[in-house]
Amino acid sequence: MTTVRIYVTYKPSVFDPQGAAITDSVNSLGHTEVKQIVVGKFFDVTLDENDLDKVEEDVKDIAESLLVNFNMETYKTEILEEKA
Amino acid sequence: MTTVRIYVTYKPSVFDPQGAAITDSVNSLGHTEVKQIVVGKFFDVTLDENDLDKVEEDVKDIAESLLVNFNMETYKTEILEEKA
Repeated sequence: MTTVRIYVTYKPSVFDPQGAAITDSVNSLGHTEVKQIVVGKFFDVTLDENDLDKVEEDVKDIAESLLVNFNMETYKTEILEEKA
Repeated sequence: MTTVRIYVTYKPSVFDPQGAAITDSVNSLGHTEVKQIVVGKFFDVTLDENDLDKVEEDVKDIAESLLVNFNMETYKTEILEEKA
């Protein structure tokens, strides 16, 4: 079993309204030291597969065919866990 | 400047409907090797603060007073970047 984390964030060129709104809220709570908050999501995908090349291929296909909206988003992956 | 990432996930005891739905979709796309997908969100918080104790205190307050719903969610933090 392998668990891969897929991080999805807005492309730098895309305005993040949620992040901006949260930053304003946090500043209004008195945390003026906070300059920016960027919001993202992640998916922890557990696969019954130990061949890392196959895992990478599967995760790429899953991310690009379902999880990531390429018009606005970009993604990175990280292997969290490998269990024989 | 310090950037801290706050990871927010459902508590293990809470059912993750979105993760379950995505798992079904991925399986129906033919990726039957995928056994589970857990969905989470993260916040990259940039603070104009370099004292890590103060940063930790600020981030704890921000997470617990605004970003995390303790009835259903739990959180972890990770320091991403420290710039003098």
